[in-house]
Amino acid sequence: MKLASLKGGRDGRLVVVSRDLAWFTDASHIAPTLQAALDRWYVCEGELRGLSESLEHGAVPRERFHEHSAASPLPRAFQWADGSAYVNHVQLVRQARGAEMPESFWTDPLMYQGGSDGFLAPRDPIPLADEAWGCDLEGEVAVVTGDVPMGVDAKAALGHIRLVMLCNDVSLRNLIPGELAKGFGFFQAKPASAFSPVAVTPDELEGWKDGRLSGKLEVELNGAPLGEADAGVHMTFDFGTLIAHAAKTRGLAAGSIIGSGTVSNRGPDGGPGKPIAEGGVGYSCLAEVRTVETILHGAPKTPFLKVGDTVRIEMRDARRHSIFGAIEQEVAAA
Amino acid sequence: MKLASLKGGRDGRLVVVSRDLAWFTDASHIAPTLQAALDRWYVCEGELRGLSESLEHGAVPRERFHEHSAASPLPRAFQWADGSAYVNHVQLVRQARGAEMPESFWTDPLMYQGGSDGFLAPRDPIPLADEAWGCDLEGEVAVVTGDVPMGVDAKAALGHIRLVMLCNDVSLRNLIPGELAKGFGFFQAKPASAFSPVAVTPDELEGWKDGRLSGKLEVELNGAPLGEADAGVHMTFDFGTLIAHAAKTRGLAAGSIIGSGTVSNRGPDGGPGKPIAEGGVGYSCLAEVRTVETILHGAPKTPFLKVGDTVRIEMRDARRHSIFGAIEQEVAAA
Repeated sequence: MKLASLKGGRDGRLVVVSRDLAWFTDASHIAPTLQAALDRWYVCEGELRGLSESLEHGAVPRERFHEHSAASPLPRAFQWADGSAYVNHVQLVRQARGAEMPESFWTDPLMYQGGSDGFLAPRDPIPLADEAWGCDLEGEVAVVTGDVPMGVDAKAALGHIRLVMLCNDVSLRNLIPGELAKGFGFFQAKPASAFSPVAVTPDELEGWKDGRLSGKLEVELNGAPLGEADAGVHMTFDFGTLIAHAAKTRGLAAGSIIGSGTVSNRGPDGGPGKPIAEGGVGYSCLAEVRTVETILHGAPKTPFLKVGDTVRIEMRDARRHSIFGAIEQEVAAA
Repeated sequence: MKLASLKGGRDGRLVVVSRDLAWFTDASHIAPTLQAALDRWYVCEGELRGLSESLEHGAVPRERFHEHSAASPLPRAFQWADGSAYVNHVQLVRQARGAEMPESFWTDPLMYQGGSDGFLAPRDPIPLADEAWGCDLEGEVAVVTGDVPMGVDAKAALGHIRLVMLCNDVSLRNLIPGELAKGFGFFQAKPASAFSPVAVTPDELEGWKDGRLSGKLEVELNGAPLGEADAGVHMTFDFGTLIAHAAKTRGLAAGSIIGSGTVSNRGPDGGPGKPIAEGGVGYSCLAEVRTVETILHGAPKTPFLKVGDTVRIEMRDARRHSIFGAIEQEVAAA
């Protein structure tokens, strides 16, 4: 089943989208918003799945689905907790600045509490007040949970995953060192993120297995391929482990979004891998490109995002059909 | 005007409470929940104020208000961002562990993104799975904002404050060092917070001036006074400055909660001050008590909260009437 929130009001309007993303049908008689559906999933899930089947069979009124009309599936959410499950990415960034990565990073997930009061729509511009902040994209996979009890284990946590989507976790890289030095984590360095036009139930995803989503995460910058790392490869912590980490000392409420962190694959030699132009799988964020440049050449040469730059994040199935629709955003002066 | 959310459903039911906290009248015909009222404040504020006046004059149906029936004013919220505006508190904690505090801490606010997907009701137990986590209370003041534009300045930010309330920002002290060492800020160390039974508009507060709330924050532990620091004193950053900090790189959506951090007063000599039993104003969290013990005696002696301990946080007006109702919570085994 594929769900989306059409723009309108603070929480959008819930619709069911066809598997090929061509059509939608209104679902607001079941629940007005996706959050409302997640709040009463035990009732709404069956009704929404019935509607989804009817849509596939052409048995309900339908309209063309335009990704531009979609808000993020949860236009605002009660929780956005982003992990850093591709430890390769963390290790590279540390290596570039000559810092050791603690061994515990391979067993204890990194996770930060992100702002969730307003997400960008998947085709909305990224508002940027100052290019000197070092604006970056981060291509990620994210899941939406139901209610998760405190102390859940990683295996049981998988049963609480309701939906899967893609994310552009916008980051202001040049604000990060100062914030991290203060010790309270990210705040100004993490403005609003954007999620894919469509959120998909795990059973619908061929690449979903054991809490990981296999498939190339296609990341483009100004129309040129930047990354095509496989999200199912080198993900040290699966989503069950990330959810269990988040729920260690408190329950998570329905509609909590848990992110994977920047998708990142090691090269065949275990090293940082190569750009797509050199036969590698490339990178899902500019910080990693700059990190590899620093390791290889002593300094970064790729700049961060400037006003007018566009980024695109998408994943396709085996038949090259878009699974979640595309996040495509232009950086705009704020 | 005083507002509360009676328990029921995920978001409670909006009521207007009388100034003396004795009565309430249903407000759900204006907005079903406080979040809904904040979403349409430009319409709802006037109607709610009219209802409040009618309640004071006995012109509408009313029922007895019981603080036990109240959820946190926003039982779940789209944002909880907690500052650390009483820099004295930060300086003491650093001093106890022999760390210098950077000078910038006096001019650049500390703020962390907290979890907001579910808050404890003001009289609900604090669920604690492991006493070794070092459970602590933190007595704070918090404000609820309307929509705040990105880049707002501190003065203009004051105009976006809709409501004021008290907070118990529950903290798991023994999990903090490990999390801060990882560099991504707090997560497991900050389980659900609780807010006062009633949220109050700034115009209703005698002690509200220039983005600070004057008045003794009465903090009790197991029925004995622990702190009575004045929340209007030694607050380095007013709420306007905290909101402007939060909104530097992104707007804040209506219903965002911004916290002051633990209320803390310096002693008359500029030092850490004394316990209430020794004629001082005491402390609003156990970490500060333990810090002062460490500075004076080389080691802490006051333990963190244990199962069965109760904490109470309240503020009274000049006539000793409770302004926000009391947060009163017992620590319970989870």
